[in-house]
Amino acid sequence: MNEFELIQHFFTDSACAQGGENVSLGIGDDCALLQVPAGHSCAVSTDTLVSGIHFPENAPAFLLGQRTLAVATSDLAAMGATPIGFTLAITLPQLDATWLQAFSAGLSAMAQSCGITLVGGDTTRGPLAMTVTVLGAAPLQQTLLRSGAQVGDVLCVSGPLGAAAAAVPLLLDEIKAQDTPAAILQPLFDAYWSPQPQLALGQYLRGKAHAALDISDGLLADCGHIAKASKVCLQIQQSQVPVSVAASQLLGAAAGLKCALSGGDDYHLAFTIAAAQLAPLQRQFPAVQVIGQVCAGEGVQLLDQAGQSVTQSYSGYRHFN
Amino acid sequence: MNEFELIQHFFTDSACAQGGENVSLGIGDDCALLQVPAGHSCAVSTDTLVSGIHFPENAPAFLLGQRTLAVATSDLAAMGATPIGFTLAITLPQLDATWLQAFSAGLSAMAQSCGITLVGGDTTRGPLAMTVTVLGAAPLQQTLLRSGAQVGDVLCVSGPLGAAAAAVPLLLDEIKAQDTPAAILQPLFDAYWSPQPQLALGQYLRGKAHAALDISDGLLADCGHIAKASKVCLQIQQSQVPVSVAASQLLGAAAGLKCALSGGDDYHLAFTIAAAQLAPLQRQFPAVQVIGQVCAGEGVQLLDQAGQSVTQSYSGYRHFN
Repeated sequence: MNEFELIQHFFTDSACAQGGENVSLGIGDDCALLQVPAGHSCAVSTDTLVSGIHFPENAPAFLLGQRTLAVATSDLAAMGATPIGFTLAITLPQLDATWLQAFSAGLSAMAQSCGITLVGGDTTRGPLAMTVTVLGAAPLQQTLLRSGAQVGDVLCVSGPLGAAAAAVPLLLDEIKAQDTPAAILQPLFDAYWSPQPQLALGQYLRGKAHAALDISDGLLADCGHIAKASKVCLQIQQSQVPVSVAASQLLGAAAGLKCALSGGDDYHLAFTIAAAQLAPLQRQFPAVQVIGQVCAGEGVQLLDQAGQSVTQSYSGYRHFN
Repeated sequence: MNEFELIQHFFTDSACAQGGENVSLGIGDDCALLQVPAGHSCAVSTDTLVSGIHFPENAPAFLLGQRTLAVATSDLAAMGATPIGFTLAITLPQLDATWLQAFSAGLSAMAQSCGITLVGGDTTRGPLAMTVTVLGAAPLQQTLLRSGAQVGDVLCVSGPLGAAAAAVPLLLDEIKAQDTPAAILQPLFDAYWSPQPQLALGQYLRGKAHAALDISDGLLADCGHIAKASKVCLQIQQSQVPVSVAASQLLGAAAGLKCALSGGDDYHLAFTIAAAQLAPLQRQFPAVQVIGQVCAGEGVQLLDQAGQSVTQSYSGYRHFN
């Protein structure tokens, strides 16, 4: 196959570029055409991942395909949107059929799991990088914004945090993977390479949660975004923050907690909601945990069990260079 | 200003990120929210431009900002769509306030001229490259596709071709700009750096043209796309192809014609339409010229004045490396 045929085969003709309920025209014309159902906005978000910065340079292609799409689609989950389509602009150092096949398979697996269709893109030559733009349908008046948190709300997260950040020293070979039991390795690598966008939860929260986002920069930093947009203070009970068991096993309790508070790359949802909504929510989504509350004020307060503010230094999101 | 403030100032707070008739939520949340009017599809297209491949490495930032957005928005024109919003993923070798200010000003100038709003994006560190995803509203049943050309249609282009391709040897310093009169230089540089997406014409052609696209790869290659998608033959009368006067003045008639036929980067529209539609069309858009017709068959035939097929070798789109 020549270059054009390789791209055609692994992208245009791939499983993830076929069908799609609200895709009336896919790849092949000047634009794709998507149908946004009546009563919905078109939600759109763009993410770029650069080799050596957002993922290690030797990243396996299948896992990279999964992760590239998951990271972007998570933004649709955070708005309570239903995925429709995505475009992929990929810059490749060379066209390697084996690599393309694996990347395309990983992309297709995540696309199928999220119900989203590849509708366009561009392939260029250069250092490895991917830009994904996701499009979805968000119901008017029920979209989950960062700006609606109300004093008295409880603050929740959709599951345990810190696993993806704890995988980073393994990916960087700072901790030898061969010295680590598989029962610890697997959940950490899964969290890093195959984060699951919380689409079902995001859609459940429509019209219920007052504010929401997906945790990409780290819990404290992202709660800061809600606090700022909503002009409130988010109080977090440190003892209530669910820390990935494998992260604590690998790094110890203190470093595991640090990953959960500021490691980033979790792609769980953080949201605020009236306490009265909790019981039915947790019946349907038992991994959801209350970690704090919304108060008058500004910023984020991390509290110990005595209710005292905890001063801690956090390095935040960690790049690969 | 620190890095975050620079990006905030020159993108989030820039003129091109404000307002927008169908933008209900702009930059700042997990997604932007766009309103696609009833009876319309959401048209979406993604283009990547890489330094040294799609534009010269020393490209002036203002002109690059203009061109980046124009190239992408031209795809909306080619579908007959009305622009709504765009996202910009930009990879920068360093954050240089002077460069960012000029790029942002060029982007904003083109955004205003096209009526399109910056609604999201991503900034990363690396070799200079930009990926733009444009979104617009395309009326159902009246969208301009590549696939509808009908035998008996006339083939038209929206204006003179070849100027952008003729600018390339000047940009590469193969022809010294200081030896070239300004009256020749200016239209060539304008065509290259500030192509004007043919939005008004695209919207006029809704429900009238049977097939359309924007000329980015070169007239012959792009007509080949219509021929293939529509399963017809496009016959082009070589003598009817409008060649940029400045291109011919710079390079001579033969090389100017070659630029017009296969140079690319024109961003004029090529379209097929019933001959009966021509008179009112050309009254409103006098630059539109008939260059051929649609016949049964396949591929593209270039004909001389005797009606004989012209065999010619064309290098096609020229990269900068």
